[in-house]
This record gives sequence, C-alpha cells and structure tokens, in this order.
Amino acid sequence: MSLLLTGISELTTNDPARGDGHADPGDALLGVIRDAALVVSTDGVVEWVGPVAEAPDADTRRDLGGRAVIPGFVDSHTHLVFAGDRSAEFAARMTGTPYDGGGIAVSVAATRAASDDELRALVAARVAEMRAQGTTTVEIKSGYGLTLDDELRSLRIAREVTSHTTFLGAHVVPREYAPDRAAYVDLVTGPMLDAVTADGPTTLAESIDVFCEPHSAHAFDGDEARTILEAGRAAGLSLRVHGNQLGPGPGVRLACELGARSVDHCTFLDEADVEALAAARGTTVATLLPGVEFSTRSPYPDARALIDAGVDVALASDCNPGTCYSSSIPFAIALAVREMGMTPAEALHAATAVSARSLGLDRRIAPGQPAELAVIDAPSHLHLAYRAGVPIVRALDL
Amino acid sequence: MSLLLTGISELTTNDPARGDGHADPGDALLGVIRDAALVVSTDGVVEWVGPVAEAPDADTRRDLGGRAVIPGFVDSHTHLVFAGDRSAEFAARMTGTPYDGGGIAVSVAATRAASDDELRALVAARVAEMRAQGTTTVEIKSGYGLTLDDELRSLRIAREVTSHTTFLGAHVVPREYAPDRAAYVDLVTGPMLDAVTADGPTTLAESIDVFCEPHSAHAFDGDEARTILEAGRAAGLSLRVHGNQLGPGPGVRLACELGARSVDHCTFLDEADVEALAAARGTTVATLLPGVEFSTRSPYPDARALIDAGVDVALASDCNPGTCYSSSIPFAIALAVREMGMTPAEALHAATAVSARSLGLDRRIAPGQPAELAVIDAPSHLHLAYRAGVPIVRALDL
Repeated sequence: MSLLLTGISELTTNDPARGDGHADPGDALLGVIRDAALVVSTDGVVEWVGPVAEAPDADTRRDLGGRAVIPGFVDSHTHLVFAGDRSAEFAARMTGTPYDGGGIAVSVAATRAASDDELRALVAARVAEMRAQGTTTVEIKSGYGLTLDDELRSLRIAREVTSHTTFLGAHVVPREYAPDRAAYVDLVTGPMLDAVTADGPTTLAESIDVFCEPHSAHAFDGDEARTILEAGRAAGLSLRVHGNQLGPGPGVRLACELGARSVDHCTFLDEADVEALAAARGTTVATLLPGVEFSTRSPYPDARALIDAGVDVALASDCNPGTCYSSSIPFAIALAVREMGMTPAEALHAATAVSARSLGLDRRIAPGQPAELAVIDAPSHLHLAYRAGVPIVRALDL
Repeated sequence: MSLLLTGISELTTNDPARGDGHADPGDALLGVIRDAALVVSTDGVVEWVGPVAEAPDADTRRDLGGRAVIPGFVDSHTHLVFAGDRSAEFAARMTGTPYDGGGIAVSVAATRAASDDELRALVAARVAEMRAQGTTTVEIKSGYGLTLDDELRSLRIAREVTSHTTFLGAHVVPREYAPDRAAYVDLVTGPMLDAVTADGPTTLAESIDVFCEPHSAHAFDGDEARTILEAGRAAGLSLRVHGNQLGPGPGVRLACELGARSVDHCTFLDEADVEALAAARGTTVATLLPGVEFSTRSPYPDARALIDAGVDVALASDCNPGTCYSSSIPFAIALAVREMGMTPAEALHAATAVSARSLGLDRRIAPGQPAELAVIDAPSHLHLAYRAGVPIVRALDL
C-alpha cells in the first residue's frame, strides 16, 4: 500500500541534486522542491519524491494544505533518563548562581531512587514531547546512574525507545568516588564498560561519551577523558565527547584526534580547536547546543565562523534537567539564527542532515529512505526561526 | 452547576494576601497556594480558592494530576489583523538588513487585498494558536489598513474576538501620504477617528495608539504623536503608545504626561524616561516586548532596572508579521528571565497581573473573578522559563 502526500508548499530533501534549481543559496543547500509531492509506503519508506505535477498514482492520498515538509529533526544529544526536579536550581542560576556541574548529583540521587517503571514513563513522555515538536530520531545518553547497575538500567530503558544510545558513565565523578577519581575511571573503563558490551559491542550502547571539562571539579580532565574514550573505542563503541563547554580545554582536539563522531558544546574554542575541527570534516561533527547557552546565560559559540572555516556543524537540544530542560529543536534553530549567525537553511540542515551524520545516519528525503518526516504549519521552513517559540512543527504520522 | 478542580500542585492567584505564606519572594508576589483547589461555576466564574484540604463540595470534579495553574496570560499588545508573508524579510534581517518599519507597507498591501473572510480566518487561527499557548485575553490593534475603510474593517474583525481593540491608524504614514504627512495626521484625527467613535466612543475601539519613533521615516514624531493621542483622548479613547523602540525619543515621556495606560517597547530609555515611568506608576505601564528584540537582534531593555526603579512592567508578545511573528507568551517570559533580569515570578506577574492592568482588567484568581485560567504540564510556574521553547502551557477549557 502506498500513500501520496500532496499540498506540500515546500519540501526540504537535504539533497542538493534533487532541488528545483532555485537560486537561493539556502534552498540549494536544502535541496528544496516547491509544490512538491511524496509517495511513501505504509510501512514507512519513501518511494517517490518530486514536483506534484509529475507525481505518480498511489493507493491513497492526503493533502497537507500548503504546508512545508522537512526531514524529521535528529536530536543527537539528549539525557532523557532522569528523575527529579531542578527548576529551583535554574531559577537560582538566573539570579546569579553559576553552573559548575555540581547539580548533576541531585539528578543522580533522584534517578537511582526511581523505579524502572517510573523512569520508563518519564522517558516515554519526553520522547512523545519531542515527536510533537518534530523530532523523529533521538540519541539518549546514560549518566545519571553512575553505578554499574544504574548505568545498565538507564541504557536498557533508553534502548527500548531508540537504537542511538550512548554510555555516559563518565558524566561526572560521583560523590562517593570524589576522594579517588582514578578508581571511578577504572570502574567506567573496566566493569561498567565490560557489562555494557557483554552482549556484543553495540547491543546496549552505540557510543561512549565523556564530559571532558577541566573547569569543573566534577568532570574529567584531558588525560582521564582519553583513557575512557580509548577504552570505549577498543570495546567497539563509537566516540562522542562533551568538550569546551565551560571554558577552553582539550576536549575538542582530543575528539578530533581520536576520530569521534561528534564533539558537543564547543562553547569556548581557540584557533587550534577550529583548525582541528575543520581538518576533521567528514569524520567529527561539532554539535552546538544553544539551548544550554540560553539556559546557563553563557556566551554562544560562533557558528558562523565554524561554518566559514569548513567545520561540520550540527544542532541538538541537550535536553537535560540541569543546563537545558528544553526538548525543542525549533527553539535551538531560532537561537542558532538569532545568536550564532547561522542562516535559517544552515540551522535546519544542521538539525537534520548533519546531526544525522553524527549518528551514522543519512537524513535525506529520497526513494528508499525511511519516511521520517515533519510538517510545519506554515508555507516555508523559514517560519521555524521566524515564529520563535510557537509550536508549529510536528512529526508526520503516516 | 459548579466544578471542583483538584490536583493543583501550585496555584498562582496574583493576590499576595491569598498566598500560603511561603517565604520565597516570588511566591509572595504571585500569592502562590501549594496543593490548591478551585471551584468554578460552569458559566466561568471563580467561586472558591484555597488549599485542597479545605475545599468545599461541588457538582463535578476534575483532577489536574499535579499540574500548576496560573491566570491565563493577558497579551496586551498584538497586531493580529494582517495578511501576507514576511518570512523572507525576517531571514534577510538575520543576515544584516536593518529594520526601519518600511516592511509594514508590504503587510498593508496584502491586508487591503484580502477579503473580510480571509482576514477573519487568519485572526481566528492566531487567537486559537495563542489560546493553545495559555493566552486567554488578547488586545488587537488595527494598523495594516491605513485607509478609513480598511481601518474600520480591521477593528470590526478584531472586535468579533475581543473587546480590547486599539485603533492604530497611526501605525505608519502610508506610502500614498509620504509627500504630505500632515494630511495623513488630519485623516487619522479627523474622519478616521470620527468613524471609529461614531457609534459611541468605545464601541469599536477601546484605545488609540501611535508608533512614535523619530528614528523611522515611516512613523510619527513627538509632535505628530501628541496631536493624535490628544485627539483620541478627546474622543473618549484610552491611550497606548509605541515608544522608544528604535532609539531614544519622546514617546515614553509623552505617554506618561498624557496618562496613557501603556507605553510599549521601551527599548532605548534614558534616566528621564525611567523617572517619568516611575512617577507614572499606577497609571502608565511599561510594556516590554522581548520577542521584538529577539526577532530584530536589538539590545534588550533592562527590566531589572525598571522594576528596581518602581516602574510597572508588563510583558506582551507584539505578535505581528514584521518585528516579531511569535504569539508565545511563554517565550516572552523565557526571554525576560534570560535577557532582561526578571525573576520567573516577576515575568509571570508581568504577563498576567500587570498586562491586565494596562487593559483596565484585574487578573487575580479570586471569588467573583472570571475563571480565565491556564494549566502547565509541570508542577511549578518556574518551568515556563526553565523549559524554554517547549509547549507546556495551555488555556484551561472548563
């Protein structure tokens, strides 16, 4: 059975070769087709893409009423497995209390205390909330367990809703290990990693990640991060890094050196960092998380300079209870345009094609691809940033 | 018939005398009651407010599942009667084209060309979008007609959905009057104002407004604005002013001098402006519109300094096709907290109690008041800013 979707004012295919040849550079990047149509199979595969005037027949048809269709957002950086409420910490930060990563312990305690079913319900609600805002693919990290059993439990619960799971035992050094950090690194790289990969290297986690941040007493320095990432790589996991969030540091260069799929935050970069990222193009993506800068009142990274230097730039939410409890990719896009010098087209591309690449995915709309689509209550993707804060985009249910 | 609402984790009454005595200064400002209940009549009047432990019986009951309830947002500054699409102008501005008010002419042309039914459908969709984001009261300005017939038509269509209508014939000088600005001021203060007030001073418009902005060739200088406001006042309308948006100017002081209910934007203020606003406390509200600063990449006004100086500060959306096509009050609240130094409680108070006062309304939740309520998918109003960009608040349908 096949479904013909018509009434598409503008279709972003993420395939420049497929666009309708419009001169606008943003439209060229996005491979935009105006007055488009799509045929999808009812089991969710794209069968045909093109101008509506050339559309083939299908078993059924649905008119989208002049709306724009885009690839569903790929949120490649989230921490959805947590319990507890840290809104008061946010309010305190907005009146001057700085963020140093210490609040993570609050979420760790609440997450450890929650039952499996409680965590499962919280994760399901957050994934549904994201889907209602246009996100069709989500990466989920562990990292609020920080014991072997609690990290495994977090990954299992995450794995029930996505194959893009990331082992973040090295989120922070838990309080009980503060006097002996080396012992915690040994735990992460030894028993925890063994357990995560026991049933095959990527059965439970696709990647390993580390919060590399010399500016936080709770996070990991460059040497510790290297040890953790190398152990993960040896165990068959792909690599992700939280780098250069709170100040300059070794995270970005380490990620590039080790061939990580993504280094995330990139808030404080020097010239050598930008050069390393540009040289790593095609391998390591710089994933910017502007919701974090918004919610911690930090300076924004200069995405314009990164793109102009040839860096692959992705956007994600970093949805988490401490530094950014926003699950909204449209909000991240609006911030990217307002605050980081990205064009609306670059921001959409970053939140779909480039973030997908950081998860090893191809997020073009083309025959044979999964029909992971989102629809905007507006004639153009420009409205994602133009209508900041307004919920106008949702995943398209077939 | 009466309805008992329970399962309210936190109720913002906007009545400090009604709060449960919590020490938090924000909670005191908002008159917060934890574990609250409400009884409302099915024709929409609050009958009882208090702790759930003391709640009386009612004919029916509904459990809100541990959510926070707040007064519905009062959006006291919007321009909802328009047709056309200016998303490309937004995208151009984000890459460097400055805003000078000239784009208003694009909306004027499209609005004049639209049928009554087209405009009616657009307004209805925008009001519904706002209600889905927690706004229960909306002010709507004319100002994209700029002929006698088109201004009257805009006000009539606005009046079908709200009693808080504002005559903004003095939005800009329309192109056809550019060679003779005085003739347009004569039209606004003469035939247009006569027609607006023909069936009684406030039958069609509650207020008159003017875009007082010497920095725009399209808007009105201080003398022109005074002429227009004095004519409106003489005709029985209350006064509102767009002031000090694009640079320093006479708008704020003029509004205070004339006893306007509100002066809106207040982006560029000097000491004398702040002193005038503080002296006008209780009469003239400073309505801040941070979505405009976001969408025009302007500096934000310093709300903290205004509040500390004793100024009444309100928040509104300015939903309009040019400088801010966001209808989201939660977004304005998040910006107020991130960018303007307001506490979450001050921002919520500004978007409900103070914005209501600028429309001559009392927006407390108390017996005898209209049950204009919104419910948050979270246990506390703090989540409005904490969860920036996420649609978690909606008007409560009784």
